[in-house]
Parts: sequence; C-alpha cells; structure tokens
Amino acid sequence: MSFFSRHIPAFQWIATYDRKQFQGDLAAGLTVGVMLIPQGMAYAMIAGLPPIYGLYASTLPLIIYALLGTSRQLAVGPVAMVSLLTATGVAALAEPNTETYIMLAITLAFMVGAIQFLLGVFRLGFLVNFLSHPVVSGFTSAAALIIGFSQLKHLMGVSLPKSQKVHEILIGAVQHMDQIHWPTLLLGISGIALILIARRIDRRIPAPLLAVIVGIGAVSVWHLDQGGVRVVGEVPGGLPSLMFPQLDGASLKALLGTALAISLVSFMESIAVAKAIQSRHKDYELDANKELIALGSANLGGALFQGYPVTGGFSRTAVNDQAGARTGLASMISALLIILTLLFLTPLFHDLPNAILASVIMVAVFGLIDYTEAIRLWKTDRSDFWMLLITFFATLGLGIEEGIGIGVILSLGLVIYRTSRPHIATLGRVPGSSFYRNVDRFSDLEVPSDLLILRLDAQLYFANLNYCKDHINEKIREKGDALRGIILNAESISHIDSSAAHFLADLVRELRQRGYIVLLNSVIGPVRDKMGLTGLLDLIGTQNMFMSVQEAVDAFDDQRKKHPADDSYRSYSTQVNP
Amino acid sequence: MSFFSRHIPAFQWIATYDRKQFQGDLAAGLTVGVMLIPQGMAYAMIAGLPPIYGLYASTLPLIIYALLGTSRQLAVGPVAMVSLLTATGVAALAEPNTETYIMLAITLAFMVGAIQFLLGVFRLGFLVNFLSHPVVSGFTSAAALIIGFSQLKHLMGVSLPKSQKVHEILIGAVQHMDQIHWPTLLLGISGIALILIARRIDRRIPAPLLAVIVGIGAVSVWHLDQGGVRVVGEVPGGLPSLMFPQLDGASLKALLGTALAISLVSFMESIAVAKAIQSRHKDYELDANKELIALGSANLGGALFQGYPVTGGFSRTAVNDQAGARTGLASMISALLIILTLLFLTPLFHDLPNAILASVIMVAVFGLIDYTEAIRLWKTDRSDFWMLLITFFATLGLGIEEGIGIGVILSLGLVIYRTSRPHIATLGRVPGSSFYRNVDRFSDLEVPSDLLILRLDAQLYFANLNYCKDHINEKIREKGDALRGIILNAESISHIDSSAAHFLADLVRELRQRGYIVLLNSVIGPVRDKMGLTGLLDLIGTQNMFMSVQEAVDAFDDQRKKHPADDSYRSYSTQVNP
Repeated sequence: MSFFSRHIPAFQWIATYDRKQFQGDLAAGLTVGVMLIPQGMAYAMIAGLPPIYGLYASTLPLIIYALLGTSRQLAVGPVAMVSLLTATGVAALAEPNTETYIMLAITLAFMVGAIQFLLGVFRLGFLVNFLSHPVVSGFTSAAALIIGFSQLKHLMGVSLPKSQKVHEILIGAVQHMDQIHWPTLLLGISGIALILIARRIDRRIPAPLLAVIVGIGAVSVWHLDQGGVRVVGEVPGGLPSLMFPQLDGASLKALLGTALAISLVSFMESIAVAKAIQSRHKDYELDANKELIALGSANLGGALFQGYPVTGGFSRTAVNDQAGARTGLASMISALLIILTLLFLTPLFHDLPNAILASVIMVAVFGLIDYTEAIRLWKTDRSDFWMLLITFFATLGLGIEEGIGIGVILSLGLVIYRTSRPHIATLGRVPGSSFYRNVDRFSDLEVPSDLLILRLDAQLYFANLNYCKDHINEKIREKGDALRGIILNAESISHIDSSAAHFLADLVRELRQRGYIVLLNSVIGPVRDKMGLTGLLDLIGTQNMFMSVQEAVDAFDDQRKKHPADDSYRSYSTQVNP
Repeated sequence: MSFFSRHIPAFQWIATYDRKQFQGDLAAGLTVGVMLIPQGMAYAMIAGLPPIYGLYASTLPLIIYALLGTSRQLAVGPVAMVSLLTATGVAALAEPNTETYIMLAITLAFMVGAIQFLLGVFRLGFLVNFLSHPVVSGFTSAAALIIGFSQLKHLMGVSLPKSQKVHEILIGAVQHMDQIHWPTLLLGISGIALILIARRIDRRIPAPLLAVIVGIGAVSVWHLDQGGVRVVGEVPGGLPSLMFPQLDGASLKALLGTALAISLVSFMESIAVAKAIQSRHKDYELDANKELIALGSANLGGALFQGYPVTGGFSRTAVNDQAGARTGLASMISALLIILTLLFLTPLFHDLPNAILASVIMVAVFGLIDYTEAIRLWKTDRSDFWMLLITFFATLGLGIEEGIGIGVILSLGLVIYRTSRPHIATLGRVPGSSFYRNVDRFSDLEVPSDLLILRLDAQLYFANLNYCKDHINEKIREKGDALRGIILNAESISHIDSSAAHFLADLVRELRQRGYIVLLNSVIGPVRDKMGLTGLLDLIGTQNMFMSVQEAVDAFDDQRKKHPADDSYRSYSTQVNP
C-alpha cells in the first residue's frame, strides 16, 4: 500500500473508481443531501444554535471524512445525541443563540476534534469498548426522551423554563397549557402526521423535507408568522467563513468534560453504524483508530468554518447505503448540495416554522427509544437489564453526562464484582468415561469419598482469594474425615496475579500440612509461567501437575495405594502447629 | 451454639476457661499493657492529640473487643496508621491539641464505629478484598515514612511548618537546622539507640517503656525541661468521662471521607493480623463480618468515653500471641493495667520528653517500610510492582487518602484492562495423544491445515468482544484458503454476558456463512445456561458441542469426509452478501 493510500483511505477507491460506482454515489449523495437540509437545521436547534449552523456543519466535515474515513457509506454530520450533549455543555456557560454561545459550541467542536484525533494517533480506540450495550441502550432511550420533550416548547409555541430533566419539562408544559399557541401546535402535529404517513406510503419519500416544504408553503400562503407562529426568520446566505475558535483557558477547562463525553459517545455511535454497514459489504476494512483520526479531522476542520460537533449518524448512513453509496464520493455530493443550498436557497427558509423542525426531531428521536431490548434483557440477563434501567433513569433524573458516567462505572463495577465471586464447581466422573462434570448439574456422576475435585472458573487475583479460600474450606468440611486428596482443575483459571500466587502457595502448604495429597491439572501456559516466576511451580512440583483430571485422579489413586491406610500420618499432621 | 455465644463470641471460651489459659493470658496482658503505655501516648501525638487520649483509647475499646471479637489474640488500641489518618482528616478542620480538635477526633471515632458496625451487619466485610497486597504495601511504606518524618520536629525540638508531604517536611527541617535544640536531639537519638540496642539484646525487653523510664529519669534528675526540652507536662489523672460526641451535620459531612478511609484501612490491617495469628492456632474461627461488628462496637464505645479511633495493631498482637495469650481475657488485663495507670501513675508522665515519644514512633514505623516486597514483585509480577510504586509515590506526593484511592482505582482498572485483552491460544495436538496445547508454547504439536482450534482464556463480556473478534479474524486470515473448520475450546470461558451472547451468535452465523464448520467443546455449566436463555444454544445446535477438543476434532473429520471436496459450496458462500 502506498504512503498516500495508507494515510488517506480515499486513494484506495479513487484509483479504481468506475461509472457504476458513480451512479450509486450520485443517487445516494443527493438523497442524503436532501435529508440533511431539514435534519441539519433541526439538530442545530437541539444544540441551542441558529438553524443555519446545522448547514455549516454539513459541509467541510463531510468532505474531510470522505477523504480520511475508512468507511465508504458512513454519513457524517449533525446528529441528535451530539447536539443534545452540546446543548448540555454550552448552556451551562452562556445563553443559547447568543454570540458567546455560538463561539463556545465551535470551540467545543475544535476540542472534540483534537481529542478524537489524539485518541486515534495514540491508538486508544479500544476505550470505546468499555461502553456496554445495555448502558448505551438505556442512555440512548433516555436521551431520546429528553430531546423529544425538549421540543415541546416549539411544538406548543410557548416559552418553557430551561431544563434537561423530563419531569421538569413535563411539569413546565402542563403549567403552561393555558398559553398554548393553537395554530403552532396544529402545524407541529400536522408535521408529525405528514412524516409518519409519508413513511408509511413509501420509505423512499424524503418525508422531513416534504414537511419542511409544506410548512414553508403554509406560512407563506396564510401569513401564519403574522398570526404568531414562530419561524426561522432571516437566514444569512453564503458559505461559512474561516474563523479560528477562541481557545482561552477558562472555556477549555469548562468544556473539557463535555468534550470528552462527546468524543467517546459520538465515536461509539459512528463506529457502531460503520461496522454494521461494513459487515454487509466487506470490500474494504474498517480501522477504529483511523476512524478516530478521520472524525477528529472532520471536527477540527469543521470548527475552523463555524461548525459545531458532528459524527457519523445512524439514519442517514442507512439511507446512504440503501440508496447505493459505494464510496466517499456520495458524501462529497451531499456536501455539495448543502453548499449550493447555502449559496442560493437560504431566503426560502425565512418562513420555515420552528414547529415543523420540532416535528422532524420528535419523529426521528422517538424511534430511538428501544424498549424491546429491555424486555429481551429481562428474559436473558437480569443484571444487564438492571444496568440498562439504572442508566436510563440516571440519565433522565440526574443528567446526560451523569447518566452515562454512572452506567459505565456500574457496568465495570459489575465485572469486578463478578470476578470477585467466581464460580467454583465440584466435579465428578461421568460413569464409564474420563470426563468430569459439575456435580450440581449432572445427577449420576461418580464422586469419590476420599477425593475432592474442584474447578475454579475465573482469573485468580487479589479480590477473589478470600472467597475462593472460604469456598474450598467449606467443601473440605463437607467431605469430612474420609477426605485424603484434593485435585484443582485449573483449566479455566485464565490468569493469576502475585497475590494469587502467594495464596496458592499458602493453600498448598496448608493442605499438605493437614495431610492431603494436592494435585493440579490443565494449568494453561501464562499461569504456568507466573507459577514458575513466583516459585509456586517448585513448591507444587511438576510431578503433581497433569494434563487432565483423569490423569490426576489416576496419580491420586497410585499415591493412595502406596500408603493404603495412611491415617496416622494425617492425624499427626493436623495437630502440628507451625 | 446458644444465642449468647453466637452473638458474644467471648462466651465460647468463658465456658471452658481453665487455669493454664489464665497463666498465658496474665503474662500476655501485662506485657501488652506495658507496651501500650508509651505506644498509646506516642500514637496520640501522631494524631495531634494530647498523649493522655492515647491511654483513654486503650481502656473500654479493648474490653468491648475482647467480648465481641472472634480473634482471641488480637490486641486492639491506638495504632500509627489510623492515628495518622485521624490527623489528616481532623487537622483540615481545627488546630491540633485544641478543644475543637479533640472533640472532632472523638466524633470521628464514633463515625468509624458506626460505619464498621453497619458494614458488619450488612455483611459487607468482603469490600476489604478490593485492597490488593501491592497497594497496601506501597501505601503502608509511604505512610510509615510520613509518620516517621512527621516526628522530626519533636526530635529536633523545633517548630516546623505543618505538612504531611515528606519532601515539604524535609525542606522545612533543613531550613530550620540552625534552630535545632541540641539537648532534645541528643535525648531523642539516645532514645532510638536505647530501643534498638535493648531489642538486639533480648526481644522480650519492653524497650519503649525502658526508653520512657530513662527519659523521665533524665529530665527529673537534670531538670532538662528548664533547659528547653519539651515534656508532656501536666497530665489530668482519673478515668475518661462519659461524653456524647458532637454529631452536627457539618462535622459529619466534613469527616465522612476520612471516616470511610479509616473504617476500611483499619479493618483491613486488623483482619490481616487476626488471620495471620488465627492460622497458627485453629482452635477458633474468624468471621470477617463479626470482626467488623466488634471493631465498630469498640470504636462506638470508645467514642462515648473520649476515645479516638482504634483497631487491631500488628506489633502488639504479635507480642500478645508470643507472650501466651489464649483468650480475650489478655486484652482485658491490658486494659486494667491502663486503667490503673490512669488512676495512679499519671503524675509520673509530667517529665516525659516529647523527643522520647518521637523516638518510640520512629523505631516502630520505619520497621513497616517494606522494600523487599517491591524487589520480589519486580522479579515476579511487573504490573503489581508498578502498582506498589505508584501507590507509594501517590501517597507521599498527593496525600494519605489520595494515595490509597489511586491505588485501589488503578488496581481495579488493571483487572478490567486485563479482562479486556484476554489470552487466546491456538491449539495443536500433542503427537500420539488426545491432548491439545498452545502452539506458541510447544514446538512439536500436530496442527491440521484445514482446522483452527482456539481457546479463549477469559470471561467474554462487552469490553473484550472486539479484541476477540479481531484476534479470531487474524487467525483465520493466517490459515488462508485451506481452512474448513473452527473449533472453539470454551473450557476457560468462565462467564458470558448478554453482549457476548449476541457476539457469539453473530460470529457463528458469519463463520458458517463463509462456509466454515463451527464446533464448540467443554462449555461450562453457567455459560451453557446463558447460551440456552439467549437462543445461542439452538443456533449452534447441541450436536455441534462436545465434551473435549478430541471429540470435536473427530466430529470435524467426520463432517469433512461426508463432503470431501466441498470447495464449491465454500467459495459460493463467501460471495454471498446477505
């Protein structure tokens, strides 16, 4: 692979680009561009920005990603979740729709870009793995509810107290019921109905654009804006201009938490979509770290031209793929359409009612609420179900960033908790075979009275040693006086740390002192290495380590035969106090 | 077991108490009591309290623990580490040796008692397992250095700026070299020498008490206090009085972090010592949750009688055991000795020089610095070594609580990181056997060209799925076109979560689509359950799951024979785009 195609993935398709690919890219690029016009403006509104900034963010970032991204169908641009996170972070520092607010949103895009770029350079893309599916699902559903309800004020045509907590928004909405501007509400509900019906008829209809056109038409014909229906108003024409974002220390510090959250959440959303689409094509490879660099560059470049944070979005990527996108050229065509819109069509948006944009948002986000996943988890994995539910309610009740933070900490805490209480099975022989299985699960196993065979199903490390010790002692007590030997089937011990090596040494010494024969089997390579380093291997002796449970059992029987009634030794040993 | 002996463990030994036990308990109780007098006063000084409070804390708590504790040799009382933590927490709120400071220290003891009691009642003793040995070792060494150097001012007889950071203390000491009070320094160094020499001669000599007696003698005979040697001064006689600690909201909130840290750290120190001693006796059982209740009650009771936080200490417990303690009566005898001291001997302490108490502390804590553990870990477990070192320097540089906090977070983070990059082995057959081993570790294994046998050594969960997928794809690529089947040896997969079940289903589907035969073997019970719940078992089919690698290999060979040259099927399948 040449230097260029290694660093600029677009060169991998440019060299072999053909007419057929162009046909697909053209159709897809135009379709997505047409979607982007209403979505971009609507999502800018979620972010607390004038709608035009959604279009600004839909130009250069798309072109940069098309050149640097490893996905060929991913449609980058403003998305609902990132817009909401932007609003959360910036609204704490400035009043929405003001100069300062806009500048901070652009600074935020710059920071997100820098963070993603650096994460990619330092190959930290794996960090996103720590967001588990239940946490993401719970978080997304809650964020969708928050976004949806945050549009109530536009739909009702009233001013509601600023809040990102659903119950506060709802209480506010109920308290302001008497101020509802009925023409606005009627327009908004018509918008929702129009989008839903158009979709029903044919999913290929650009329903949001249709709603926008109808909305503009209604306002222009009946002069609804003079009747109090709020419209987008004057939209400055022309392309975004080159402006360096303000990077003073105070703003950077205040926005850092939000920037980190957006960097990870938006990357995760983007890579998940990109993977889903790539698995249907397989004519190219995705690279998580290059994706980070591409998204980072897109945000950095966007921020220089008045863009706010963008990422690869779910719905537009799906449309892009279905409409036949084969390469990044599709995205470049979408960007071109937005550029043409900015140059020539902005006067048309003067009469666009906010209520229509709100209806576009509400239909889009309520589709993200995923209760089927919760039902599925309830049936298959109760702890993942609770994880989803807690994240959902924490996001609703405590806030966007707090919600995802709590989800991540809880899901990692659960991993730790689970490893601290490992599953330990007592084994018995499947009659007539050399296989050994858990006595709690199979009823007709042969269990010798003088031998305890245990299998520890976990890495052994500092936090689960006491649990293991207690369990083993319990099993020994249950066996009673007949017990002469213990076999530890180590096949599923994936790792031991230094505390565990200590622990095993102590355990073996103590068990031998009590007169038991102690044998191990199926120790995997990395664990055997650590045992060698810590002297544990010498203590146990390789002659007491076997390839299978059966070999260890045979060795135990041999040793027992050599000392058929070795009870004297044993009862002496148990009295020794070292 | 009766109601009483279940809840008051002392009843377990009271019933069978005999003369021989009493002889041991008497000797041990007196020995420890004699140690407690100088240690209690010295440790109170570390805590920023007048020395008499160290004696107050050595009365009722010992008796309560003797009744409720499950260890029969544990010597409870003031210890260096907890005294230091007390100083850290309270000094942020008040000036040492003032009324407010003393009241806050007592409130802290009450909080520690309440927390430990509740942890015990709710059976949360396992929490202490999350403090790994390297973290504790690094933390203890750093705390010992801080405690030791904090006594420099008493040893030099100067006032140093208040600090708990070793480098700041040392810089302060150097800057105040010109103010050194030479008689004080001489006395302190003599104290250190006396203790070290006396110990050399016979470890049974109560060296600290000897230093205290010599120090008092020197001051009385030569009137050193009139020459500027600082002494303990007027010590109020009599027993501590019943005083309810102040529990206002502000104090409770300000002390909560320290109280939690002390609760866990002191319990960990105590249970570690208790376990070490119990393992040499075995005539009784320890119960972590009852220990928490006993220590909690000791602190609660102590706090009602002007006590500051106590726990089971390392050195006195060892002495108690060696001197023959058989039951809790030994501790009661120690407490009695302290009570008699408070009643009749306090006037003697007027002339006790602070420098002698400082020498007692310095000898005690520098023995806690454990560099051999660091060397051992460097050789056996590099990541545990770094854990120790980072905790050590974080404690020295950032502070006591920050140090242990960082250590705990890092060590749990490492567990997570390790589980996110599991070991995956490619297996080959040991010639002439039915055993399969890692091809990277054994050189002469038989590896079929058309079959890939993988063993995943980890729980499979959300954070390691991508890593596993990448690894498996990598191995499939390496095998090239000859590959026809994949066997997943699941023996060491200890757990799968819902994301992993999804992942496995996708993986199996994808591999089959690419034309590979996919077989599993040795799936353990809990994993099989989860596979059943999520429908994965049906997808894979029980006919494709085996008890051992060899059985799976035989099944693969059978299926291959049925379709000996099934390449047409395979190359068709790889072109399918679903």
